[in-house]
Amino acid sequence: MDSAFAIADQDRYRDDSASLPNSIDMSHHLSSLARNRQSSALKDLYRYAARPGMIALAGGLPSPAIFPFLELSAEVYTQDALSITPATAQAGSPDAQDAQTMIKKPSFLSWLFGKKNTETITISKPPSSSSPLDINLNTLLQYSSAQGHPALQAFIREFVSKVYQPAFADWDVLLNVGSTMAWSHVVFMLLEPGDGVLYEEWSYPGAMNTASPLPTHKVSIKVDGEGLIPEDLNKVLEEWDEEKRGFRRPRVLYTVPTGQNPTGATMLAERKKIIYNICVKYDIIIVEDEPYYALYADPWKSRNHSTRFGARYADVEHYKDSKDTDEEFLKKLPPSYLKFDYQGRVIRMDTFSKTICPGSRLGWFTCGPLFTERLLRATEASTQAPSGLAQALVAKLLADTWKYDGYIRWLRGIKATYAMRRDWMCDLFESVFHLEFDQTLTLSPHIKWVTAYERTISGMGGLVMDEKKGYKSKKALVSFVPPTAGMFVWLAVHLSSHHKFAQIKREEGPDGVNKMLYELWTDLAESNVLISPGYFFDAQPGVPHEGTEDFGFFRLSFSSATHEEMESAIKTMYKVFVKFFQEK
Amino acid sequence: MDSAFAIADQDRYRDDSASLPNSIDMSHHLSSLARNRQSSALKDLYRYAARPGMIALAGGLPSPAIFPFLELSAEVYTQDALSITPATAQAGSPDAQDAQTMIKKPSFLSWLFGKKNTETITISKPPSSSSPLDINLNTLLQYSSAQGHPALQAFIREFVSKVYQPAFADWDVLLNVGSTMAWSHVVFMLLEPGDGVLYEEWSYPGAMNTASPLPTHKVSIKVDGEGLIPEDLNKVLEEWDEEKRGFRRPRVLYTVPTGQNPTGATMLAERKKIIYNICVKYDIIIVEDEPYYALYADPWKSRNHSTRFGARYADVEHYKDSKDTDEEFLKKLPPSYLKFDYQGRVIRMDTFSKTICPGSRLGWFTCGPLFTERLLRATEASTQAPSGLAQALVAKLLADTWKYDGYIRWLRGIKATYAMRRDWMCDLFESVFHLEFDQTLTLSPHIKWVTAYERTISGMGGLVMDEKKGYKSKKALVSFVPPTAGMFVWLAVHLSSHHKFAQIKREEGPDGVNKMLYELWTDLAESNVLISPGYFFDAQPGVPHEGTEDFGFFRLSFSSATHEEMESAIKTMYKVFVKFFQEK
Repeated sequence: MDSAFAIADQDRYRDDSASLPNSIDMSHHLSSLARNRQSSALKDLYRYAARPGMIALAGGLPSPAIFPFLELSAEVYTQDALSITPATAQAGSPDAQDAQTMIKKPSFLSWLFGKKNTETITISKPPSSSSPLDINLNTLLQYSSAQGHPALQAFIREFVSKVYQPAFADWDVLLNVGSTMAWSHVVFMLLEPGDGVLYEEWSYPGAMNTASPLPTHKVSIKVDGEGLIPEDLNKVLEEWDEEKRGFRRPRVLYTVPTGQNPTGATMLAERKKIIYNICVKYDIIIVEDEPYYALYADPWKSRNHSTRFGARYADVEHYKDSKDTDEEFLKKLPPSYLKFDYQGRVIRMDTFSKTICPGSRLGWFTCGPLFTERLLRATEASTQAPSGLAQALVAKLLADTWKYDGYIRWLRGIKATYAMRRDWMCDLFESVFHLEFDQTLTLSPHIKWVTAYERTISGMGGLVMDEKKGYKSKKALVSFVPPTAGMFVWLAVHLSSHHKFAQIKREEGPDGVNKMLYELWTDLAESNVLISPGYFFDAQPGVPHEGTEDFGFFRLSFSSATHEEMESAIKTMYKVFVKFFQEK
Repeated sequence: MDSAFAIADQDRYRDDSASLPNSIDMSHHLSSLARNRQSSALKDLYRYAARPGMIALAGGLPSPAIFPFLELSAEVYTQDALSITPATAQAGSPDAQDAQTMIKKPSFLSWLFGKKNTETITISKPPSSSSPLDINLNTLLQYSSAQGHPALQAFIREFVSKVYQPAFADWDVLLNVGSTMAWSHVVFMLLEPGDGVLYEEWSYPGAMNTASPLPTHKVSIKVDGEGLIPEDLNKVLEEWDEEKRGFRRPRVLYTVPTGQNPTGATMLAERKKIIYNICVKYDIIIVEDEPYYALYADPWKSRNHSTRFGARYADVEHYKDSKDTDEEFLKKLPPSYLKFDYQGRVIRMDTFSKTICPGSRLGWFTCGPLFTERLLRATEASTQAPSGLAQALVAKLLADTWKYDGYIRWLRGIKATYAMRRDWMCDLFESVFHLEFDQTLTLSPHIKWVTAYERTISGMGGLVMDEKKGYKSKKALVSFVPPTAGMFVWLAVHLSSHHKFAQIKREEGPDGVNKMLYELWTDLAESNVLISPGYFFDAQPGVPHEGTEDFGFFRLSFSSATHEEMESAIKTMYKVFVKFFQEK
């Protein structure tokens, strides 16, 4: 019943779909497990279930009268509780906000006039209408369709239609319990044991841990500061030698296009178009995992115009989101792969974990009808449906309270908060290290890498003080690309700045290089700074990362530390790095 | 961190565990997929994470300050809101209760003195203590351990320890998102494609749909009104011919011991012990799926002592739960397979779906440490953790509000409600049909089957009126065993009472017999009574059910219809049955 209403409903958002092509046949991509899944044998039953006057003794539904929850309520932020510009106003003023969180603090006067930044949502047990969109506990605490509550489906369809604008007509959405489960479903739907999966050369370990035990092989594609390098993807596929590799050419690409984990890189429209076309050519399914999509912000901008570096970085076009409309915000988001997907070969995975909270365990697929149908069957045979308690609260908040426009406003606040935190980290690097552009970096020449050096002594022409040698040339310590999205700064450590590096590399090879990095990681941890070693994210450990063999990598998260903690951590890192690279 | 606390905590409930053996090695049962799952590579990270003063830039946790839920509250029933005896008192009296639901209705006076049957629970955002058991939104809306919240784990461990009393020492519990997902995890943990699974010959289609696509073969074991028949299990395993069957002897038994779906049968201690020993002999893992466990009640008792049948059925020992203590309630529950499990070969799956609500999507495993560890790895790579919003509400209700004793009291109310509903259905059969014991039934001779006939004419020696023939002998229509648990009555339709049955069986074989049943099912549906055809539940369609070939089966649910609906349905069924068996 739910699904019938839902399908009728979605057409509201597809006014222009008449001119779009339908997805092409992708059934050859289904695994044997996915093919084996049976549709429900209960069709006759459903046909009769809708009859007026029918007495149903067929199901096994518990009696909703004795569910112990009679009413849920929640105090929630209003859609505009988060500011969209970092704190400038003083406490008590109408624009006051918390400097750490960007949460607006209503003045006493505005509070008095009812302008609070919170409101209360309430979900009652009895239905308030017979509409399938009605959000009530009788429905949401009961067993339900694996597709999710119709109100949440409708909300998500409107969002997908307006924000992603898929290029094929017959797309649909399907709720899931978060992107790890979503990816697990995709793995079992598309892959046979022994198949290969294409990953960014540094990729999310959670995704790889889900697919690898099947078992599947990891095939890494080179990345730079703008994500996957199309030439490398094409080369790997073009030159695929099944005999040499021991498995057929991969058919599935797993990618995090925006604020990639761990590199922080974001793929923009042009690159996506090229990659999409390569995937058409080699019949690859693109699995687009986008937890950080709404966290895409304008580039970091130096606040210190007195240095040559700062003056140049300040030139970066820097838009003020506060002056923008919701439409401008949306227009600046990089297009989803769905926007180029005229064949239905993209499976997009979204999650509310970063925009609402991870504890919602709610996300959704957007893809063609063959895939949503098979994923629905897989959902029925596993999670059944996301938690109704979570759906009740999130549906009430999004579909009934904030609605589409309110959610867009909320996303702008979320985006602004993480942009502020990204700025904290980059600003701290600038104030603690000596930064310079590094055009010569072998990492990826056309990306604006920033290299952090030891601090030079003013007026001494790039020299630094050395305990043993007196003055010496400053050393490159780490390089990074200030990210435009996500939660991470990916640090490339200049291991070659270490005086013993050449010797270790020659004598001990990659193992020795890794040992050096581990030593540096341990020094940091012993100094109370905990970061993630890059090898956690290595899609093909043991296979050299061409062009970056002389670097070690660390991932730094700017998502949750306070400014004070971050400052302390970056100062400590500076000291530990300088000491590590000192000749002893 | 969570897990460390949890492990320390669980020992509180294992005072006598010193005298129990640990589980034996079951690692040979793991599938290659389960073996391939990696433990987290982040051990070094965890070691440092607990250090005081550590600044963590390692994780990718979103900032909890900007989660939009600031406080949750819920109006919930008190632990004793449900009566434990069916309604007798009048409205307004101190003992008044809703006749349909057994929900107590406080009189105005008791309400005035604060004796309400509801209370409000509230979960705040900031932690109220540093204890890992503290239930707060900062923790529960964030990413969390896949093991679930420590307070819920502790609650469940106490419940398992006191109610199930496993016979091995090193058991543990692991939260999951409900038993379908739980079973899916078990399937992928234990089974290779092509393996067989032992099922009750009539089994839950959801479970079979989860395991079959792997693919796995279904091997059915005969059941009677008390569940699995040990002799048949032994025979199947003893006579296993791998060459003839085409796959190795099954190693996994899926069973619903209490209020089995669809047959309503309950396995008691003696039979479980025998089956456990057979499983030891053939090294079978017992997967005990127990959604209806707490719904185990005293046997149905006839209220009509004026008939021979009623007088005999009234003899059934009938305990009054209202006079019992919680301890008596627990003592009368059939022992879990865990109680006999001195080797750790039982994986028990529990769910809150029937005792709290399906929308909680919360359940748990109880099993040995090898299995909980591998299931935890599988959880990390799929659902990650049950919804924190659901955990917050259920943990607050169970672990902080009702607590162990309160939950036991609540379960007694749930049990009483479903027992009342079971009584409604059996009473209605008694008042609408003519019931007799049927000792001669080939279905299973030692079980008290009840056969429902056409109503006889008083004083006419078992004769009924027939439109064409005038008086004739009454016909057996359906047989059933009044269930002691669950939500279902399993009806065996006496197809052989149909005058064309012998001919159809001879000429058309099983297909013709199925067609007859489908015709009867359609007649019922067309008369607005929707029930489940037995073939939905057939573990091995096409393989004859020895001894019951002349019967067709229907499953009737008594879990959610009102008494009025049920009465109307059973009266309609009577008419449709009588008409169906009439010679036309």
